[in-house]
Amino acid sequence: MSTTSVSGTIPDTDRIEDLPEEGATAPSGIDTAELGAILLGRWPEARLAARKRAEDPRFQSKYDQTVADQRATTLEQLKLLTEAGPQYLGMPESVGGAMSPGANLSAFEELVLADPSLQIKSGVQWGLFGSAVLNLGTEEHHKKWLPAILDLSMPGAFAMTEIGHGSDVASIGTTATYIPETDEFEIHTPFKAAWKDYLGNAALHGRAATVFAQLIVDGMNHGVHCLYVPLRDENGEFLPGVGGEDDGRKGGLNGIDNGRLHFDHVRVPRTNLLNKYGDVDENGVYSSPIPSPGRRFFTMIGTLVQGRVSLDGAATIANQAALSIAVRYAEQRRQFTSDSDIREQTLLDYQRHQRRLIPRIAETYAMAFAHQQLLDKFHEVFSGQDESDGNRQELETLAAAFKPMSTWSALDTLQECREACGGAGFMAKNRFVELRADLDVYVTFEGDNTILLQLVAKRLLNDYSAEFKNADVGVMARYVADRATEAGFNRSGLRKLTQAFSDTGDSRKSVNALRDPAAQRALLTDRVQTMVGDVAEELRAVARKSRTEQAEAFNRNQNRLLEAARSHAQLLQWEAFTSGLEKIEDPDTKRVLTWLRDLFGLRLIEQDLAWYLSYGRLSMRRGRALESYINRLIARLRPYSLELVDAFGLSPELLRAEIGGTVEAERQQEAEDYYRRLRASGDAPVKEPKPAKNPGAQTRGHHA
Amino acid sequence: MSTTSVSGTIPDTDRIEDLPEEGATAPSGIDTAELGAILLGRWPEARLAARKRAEDPRFQSKYDQTVADQRATTLEQLKLLTEAGPQYLGMPESVGGAMSPGANLSAFEELVLADPSLQIKSGVQWGLFGSAVLNLGTEEHHKKWLPAILDLSMPGAFAMTEIGHGSDVASIGTTATYIPETDEFEIHTPFKAAWKDYLGNAALHGRAATVFAQLIVDGMNHGVHCLYVPLRDENGEFLPGVGGEDDGRKGGLNGIDNGRLHFDHVRVPRTNLLNKYGDVDENGVYSSPIPSPGRRFFTMIGTLVQGRVSLDGAATIANQAALSIAVRYAEQRRQFTSDSDIREQTLLDYQRHQRRLIPRIAETYAMAFAHQQLLDKFHEVFSGQDESDGNRQELETLAAAFKPMSTWSALDTLQECREACGGAGFMAKNRFVELRADLDVYVTFEGDNTILLQLVAKRLLNDYSAEFKNADVGVMARYVADRATEAGFNRSGLRKLTQAFSDTGDSRKSVNALRDPAAQRALLTDRVQTMVGDVAEELRAVARKSRTEQAEAFNRNQNRLLEAARSHAQLLQWEAFTSGLEKIEDPDTKRVLTWLRDLFGLRLIEQDLAWYLSYGRLSMRRGRALESYINRLIARLRPYSLELVDAFGLSPELLRAEIGGTVEAERQQEAEDYYRRLRASGDAPVKEPKPAKNPGAQTRGHHA
Repeated sequence: MSTTSVSGTIPDTDRIEDLPEEGATAPSGIDTAELGAILLGRWPEARLAARKRAEDPRFQSKYDQTVADQRATTLEQLKLLTEAGPQYLGMPESVGGAMSPGANLSAFEELVLADPSLQIKSGVQWGLFGSAVLNLGTEEHHKKWLPAILDLSMPGAFAMTEIGHGSDVASIGTTATYIPETDEFEIHTPFKAAWKDYLGNAALHGRAATVFAQLIVDGMNHGVHCLYVPLRDENGEFLPGVGGEDDGRKGGLNGIDNGRLHFDHVRVPRTNLLNKYGDVDENGVYSSPIPSPGRRFFTMIGTLVQGRVSLDGAATIANQAALSIAVRYAEQRRQFTSDSDIREQTLLDYQRHQRRLIPRIAETYAMAFAHQQLLDKFHEVFSGQDESDGNRQELETLAAAFKPMSTWSALDTLQECREACGGAGFMAKNRFVELRADLDVYVTFEGDNTILLQLVAKRLLNDYSAEFKNADVGVMARYVADRATEAGFNRSGLRKLTQAFSDTGDSRKSVNALRDPAAQRALLTDRVQTMVGDVAEELRAVARKSRTEQAEAFNRNQNRLLEAARSHAQLLQWEAFTSGLEKIEDPDTKRVLTWLRDLFGLRLIEQDLAWYLSYGRLSMRRGRALESYINRLIARLRPYSLELVDAFGLSPELLRAEIGGTVEAERQQEAEDYYRRLRASGDAPVKEPKPAKNPGAQTRGHHA
Repeated sequence: MSTTSVSGTIPDTDRIEDLPEEGATAPSGIDTAELGAILLGRWPEARLAARKRAEDPRFQSKYDQTVADQRATTLEQLKLLTEAGPQYLGMPESVGGAMSPGANLSAFEELVLADPSLQIKSGVQWGLFGSAVLNLGTEEHHKKWLPAILDLSMPGAFAMTEIGHGSDVASIGTTATYIPETDEFEIHTPFKAAWKDYLGNAALHGRAATVFAQLIVDGMNHGVHCLYVPLRDENGEFLPGVGGEDDGRKGGLNGIDNGRLHFDHVRVPRTNLLNKYGDVDENGVYSSPIPSPGRRFFTMIGTLVQGRVSLDGAATIANQAALSIAVRYAEQRRQFTSDSDIREQTLLDYQRHQRRLIPRIAETYAMAFAHQQLLDKFHEVFSGQDESDGNRQELETLAAAFKPMSTWSALDTLQECREACGGAGFMAKNRFVELRADLDVYVTFEGDNTILLQLVAKRLLNDYSAEFKNADVGVMARYVADRATEAGFNRSGLRKLTQAFSDTGDSRKSVNALRDPAAQRALLTDRVQTMVGDVAEELRAVARKSRTEQAEAFNRNQNRLLEAARSHAQLLQWEAFTSGLEKIEDPDTKRVLTWLRDLFGLRLIEQDLAWYLSYGRLSMRRGRALESYINRLIARLRPYSLELVDAFGLSPELLRAEIGGTVEAERQQEAEDYYRRLRASGDAPVKEPKPAKNPGAQTRGHHA
């Protein structure tokens, strides 16, 4: 497709139809096989094997149960899954694994199609409990504990979060105090707010836990470390000193037994400290390969990024499933007549319905391409190809940017699809509602989305100016302290503008110029840079003021910073989508996907249009034209909607939605046939005529 | 408070702090008793009695069950409720009722606090099944059927919606054909798409139904009418010719047994036709007091408006409950330090958290005042004070405007509150998640929200120009056909602009001018009028074209029309809030509520700021200042947040949320006391110091 240079001659029109296009005809269709293969990503075998498992009813959700029964079901399913063996994909060869972190997460993500509870319960066991032992422990720990974790003979919990401190892990209250006399650690919960909470496997099934605690050695607190702590005996009874509470029913994921844990002076051997990043020797001397306590903390916490990466992938798959169902239904369902007395319009013929679904298809493609970049980066770091600090931080920033976008999108998309299917959308048999209930918590666990965006915002400030490297005010202080000092510049992926996009409001410049990807990139980038710059100036002005005043200034700009972080994350998604286009070879497919990328970009601009207008980035004329321009772009994409969701490659067994098949079309056909026969028979009742204009006229008399 | 005239001198500042305020000091607080009494509305006794019932555990939700068990529980609760007798409030004296429609809905709405399933199941029995007999039947029907409906000895379903036609009731396929030979009607479902669907009480408990069908007499179809049809015998077995299917598990409201029904040539006596608006006499002659078939249809359908009215009220109460819990938690919960090493900030101190909750408090007040107007109008019509066509149409338009706003707001607010409470928000014991699951369907039942907004849009077009009175194109055709011919002008409540608000971008005019309610009203009104006018012009241009071209033009403008309808509904909410302020006597309360109204109005303008900017209604300067202006207004309201939710008057027994009490504050206090004692004891561990700048330095040696 020809791109129109912003600075060049722009046609004096805002009608997309008038734009020159390669070839006179619209693409006849898209190559769903090619596109499907691209969407499968770098580890297609792992994904396809996982989908095959997800098609097996033994692994699928069974919701109509009490919480107790659902938990038992999920545990049984996890045992079956253990036999299938996907958990070895990401483990080192020393314990029989394939050491392919990318393949491991690919398989894990697809499990959401079987049952989100099963997915997350397996994630607790292997992705959190097991990964803590793997990534925070050393060789001896791996040999000692990983085999039983992997074969599920030792179910465990990941005990980090506390009631009183959700996102602020550095402030947890649980302590692990070294006791020289017995060469042990004493794990202790000093008050109720320090109880561990929301832990999967804690209420019932966990027999051990990786417990995060403030490590105290000889009167010095070395910060948060992780220890392996037995919880229950073989009969499931708490060991002495260990206690807990059941979190009970939740908004979803009720196959998982979340609960609370507390420890009353519980002793474990010194060697239960997972000692990769901090150790205590037999003489009671603490040592660490990372001198800075702050950097050490973030290195340890950073090993947990895989949860965020995999939720990003699972949320993308949930979007694909929801749209596959809703688009198929909207292509079949007819409602209200427009220009025919016989045949009603399909839902997807309505502009509003197109607006509800098609931009979300575009967003889902952006998420899919963005996730591939994230997963590649994850694999690079965790397979050891490049585990440099800089690369780890890039990974963490990408995960912190994409996970909020995709998990919020999943809730939004599942809800919009459910509403777009009306009453049918509310029926569990059509899949949306329970998937949404299960995925609800994705937006606040494994890093609360708002907190993650603050992390992104902090990185943006760092990249903007070295002055903010040591910013230590307000909400970000604890979360990003010290990390900042390690950060390189421009790691957040924010590119400098190479081409300014200026819109003078010249009537010869039409909204069509916005189809130029350089224009989209320039606008999206400019917004992030300007917002970050504005906030930076405000913060600079109080840099010499009191800590309280600095904190207040930070807080006054919190909303703007979070908006900048959101825009930055969306820019990165747009970049990923744009790079993804390069993989497509079939020209028609490429054209359609380019329109879809344009739609994604223009919707981002529309979403923040007030900013672009009030900062003079777009003229009032373009502002007014944008909505109808987008509507036309959507209408142009409408004929390809079905193929775009077909390319997701989700079988009926994976979708498991009554209305995701052809049932609606069959019902419509039956009704149409009935009326056709009725008309042909001559027995069709005639419609009561409208009354004559005489106001006294009534249909055959008045009912008294 | 002094209001600044838009056309007068405006201070050259956009700092809200600089604005002259009556009195130098901030309001010391608000009169929650006075405000609470105002919020209770016109039927406080009915509301308070209903709340008392909702505090009784016997009526409260029991979720941790299978669908079958939850249905049985809800049926038992409905029997208990029947004994309590609220269902008689809205019934005529002839059947022992109090004939107070307003009191009846007030009581019904509050039931959402006990259990939404119980609420909606009682609504199915008395508000739909019973009301159909009441409002569509005549005296004899009332005597014959209402007593058993009211005492629940005859549980019933309301069989209107069909699988193939959700919102398009006029197109239903079920027929009721008069059989002269036996003086009966034959109810028949000719194809699967005509099966009744999503009906409460249909799967199990319903023994009769009010069935909507095309009434066919002597070869003529008189359109949709309603008949009383027995379904099951006393043992719950389907009667001959009747069949059905269970809808199974849903996204919520699982205490209700929704299902499908179909009829195979089922005969009922002629007198089972609910004949208020259309009758067939013993000679087989059809008659109706309403000559126009279209107007007759809408009159019948119009009697069902009470469902929409009551959902608007229930959604408002759900918002009040959610915000009562989330604000209390946000006032207690502390996270991350800002300017103190000891005490962390409360969540509500964070700007973003304020942004998440406080505008939703404003919206909830707007909804509450709007609902009072709607309920008054409903009472006026249904108590017979003014049941003129014009007044009925005003009622229907108000309901069609408010119900989408409030039910969408409830889902949004419940979700935002759940996320704002983090992991705790996802626990069922904190109430948000199950309330949200139950209320999900409110946005698509009793009139799909999008369809209702189309109804509003059509009214706006009618009011704009008589030309559109007979518009019969596109999606609106069936839904609003004929109704339009009866509509008076300006019934949609759209006021003509009495004072134009023009913003020249003069730097002397600051965003402060937007605090003037006349300016807010002018902007909000102007947007609706301009958008409707623009669409009208586009439609006018194709008025002489083919039906297909007209339909296409309508469809091209569907999104804009829906946006105009949404803006109109919000304007009406704003007007209601503004009128509501007049009821407040305490000056401090009035000041705070006036700020809250300003916040509501300014948020509406912010939401559509791109429109105001691109159409030249606001200057770029004001556009840029609006966000921080709103942030300051929110910060000003922050100290009153707790009182604002206290005024909702919801007891702990009604909220039933662990974090809605003081548990979090107690935990924080315990932790704080612990650390204070620890510091005082001198045993507190010291923090590991940051390493010296020497890059080789490590903490006591390197772990090998």
